[in-house]
Amino acid sequence: MKLLSFVHQGRETWGAVVGDGVVDLGKARPQHAGLVDYIASGEYLQAAQHVEGLPIAAKLADITYLPPIPKSEKIVCAVRNYMDHHQEVLAAGMQRELSEQPPIFLRVWRSQCAHNQPIVRPHVSESLDWEGELAVIIGKGGRNIAEADAFDHVAGYSCYNDGSVREWQFHAKQIASGKNFESTGGFGPWMVTADEIAPGRALKLETRLNGEVVQSSHTGHMIFSIPKLISYASTIFTLVPGDVIATGTPAGVGWSKKPPRFMKPGDVCEVEIEGIGVLRNPIVQQD
Amino acid sequence: MKLLSFVHQGRETWGAVVGDGVVDLGKARPQHAGLVDYIASGEYLQAAQHVEGLPIAAKLADITYLPPIPKSEKIVCAVRNYMDHHQEVLAAGMQRELSEQPPIFLRVWRSQCAHNQPIVRPHVSESLDWEGELAVIIGKGGRNIAEADAFDHVAGYSCYNDGSVREWQFHAKQIASGKNFESTGGFGPWMVTADEIAPGRALKLETRLNGEVVQSSHTGHMIFSIPKLISYASTIFTLVPGDVIATGTPAGVGWSKKPPRFMKPGDVCEVEIEGIGVLRNPIVQQD
Repeated sequence: MKLLSFVHQGRETWGAVVGDGVVDLGKARPQHAGLVDYIASGEYLQAAQHVEGLPIAAKLADITYLPPIPKSEKIVCAVRNYMDHHQEVLAAGMQRELSEQPPIFLRVWRSQCAHNQPIVRPHVSESLDWEGELAVIIGKGGRNIAEADAFDHVAGYSCYNDGSVREWQFHAKQIASGKNFESTGGFGPWMVTADEIAPGRALKLETRLNGEVVQSSHTGHMIFSIPKLISYASTIFTLVPGDVIATGTPAGVGWSKKPPRFMKPGDVCEVEIEGIGVLRNPIVQQD
Repeated sequence: MKLLSFVHQGRETWGAVVGDGVVDLGKARPQHAGLVDYIASGEYLQAAQHVEGLPIAAKLADITYLPPIPKSEKIVCAVRNYMDHHQEVLAAGMQRELSEQPPIFLRVWRSQCAHNQPIVRPHVSESLDWEGELAVIIGKGGRNIAEADAFDHVAGYSCYNDGSVREWQFHAKQIASGKNFESTGGFGPWMVTADEIAPGRALKLETRLNGEVVQSSHTGHMIFSIPKLISYASTIFTLVPGDVIATGTPAGVGWSKKPPRFMKPGDVCEVEIEGIGVLRNPIVQQD
């Protein structure tokens, strides 16, 4: 199933994709305050039954998407988690070593934007770069989750564009500033439930700028696996339903290209992941 | 005024300190869902009138404290923001340069604990260190806030202990992991409203471990000022009421001592800031 959050007739709601339309589970199941509550309840595992008999509320083409989880409590992002990206970072002249443990940073939900919504290039820098990534959405929370149990905690997967303002990212060793500009992180269009994607399956991942392929890899190139990332993060804090783990980007980011290439107003960036779909964001200039 | 969040008769509420007791503004003003809403409404500026005639709900000694803002949307932390701390980092043999812009990272609210609540040393490392800091609590939100206007956005101040698991902090260049262990960041005991502390006033800051002074400095030693930190953060994202800016720690952290010294179960760590009060946390081992 593809589960999503969206705006319908001016109301924030959530539901499921059926054909080329959506059903409004928020209306049909008002006991859940949002998709995150539906996930937390565990009832999302019966989503296929829950959509039966419900009318199509709108065509996909007509809805306003929200990030699948609009306000995740935590968004944990892996840094340089693809071997091909690590190699391009070295080739670009950066001094970087692989660490023995996953390097992570945090994004805030306010830095995200939904499918079809604009990624906003801020006033202060033109160095807005793409990073296509697989996002893991936590279903069952927990602390000190063993790697062997980690996939039991995954509700589903989505596409992520870890939009980065490189100039600010490199203000200091800590990259949080360049990784948290408002409306720079594309997230969506929906969450594909975990039953549709076998644990550890290598998924083709492609990022396109104005239709041109700029990243092409697959999730089998990750350095730290999804179970390792979940286990590591849950050693630090309790993971809760709706938390997001952005698993890092493969080779092909803009600043490693010669000459460097960035996203500018009028561009359209797409992240496509096999078995999930296409996350599409136009780029606009900050007001 | 000293405003705070606490548990009273099993109910989470909020209020103000009056003498050696608290009044329950959560009961008297149910239109506000919590201290953060009271701050967001701007009505906290009349807190002195609002407490008049209210009964003392409990003695301070008898309440269970919560972090002043229990679930801040954003907790933005400055790294090496005191010149004396920067110098001790160099003296400890670390290669670090001052950056031209404030180095920041993010904590999640789940990493925090209230006054009198335990700071928890995790299973995975014994390298749990203190960092006494001044916390700034945002009152009026905004984006792209000019430094000249920044103090207008401050609701008040609190004490912060940016508890750090050094071993995990140094897993990678990104320090988020060691800075986010659950219940390692002391925050409280209350928020002193900004009218009681003149903008930019240098406040004496002292951290004590089992009564022994381990950090002694004042907030005038900050490298990046409070207005600069607010302006910088608000360039990245919209600040909202209740957001916290932890302004960095002065010299005297445990790992820079020879030999390094860490907090262990049974210890008590206190952060005292002039004009605010004393944040006290016992240390316990993770269950």
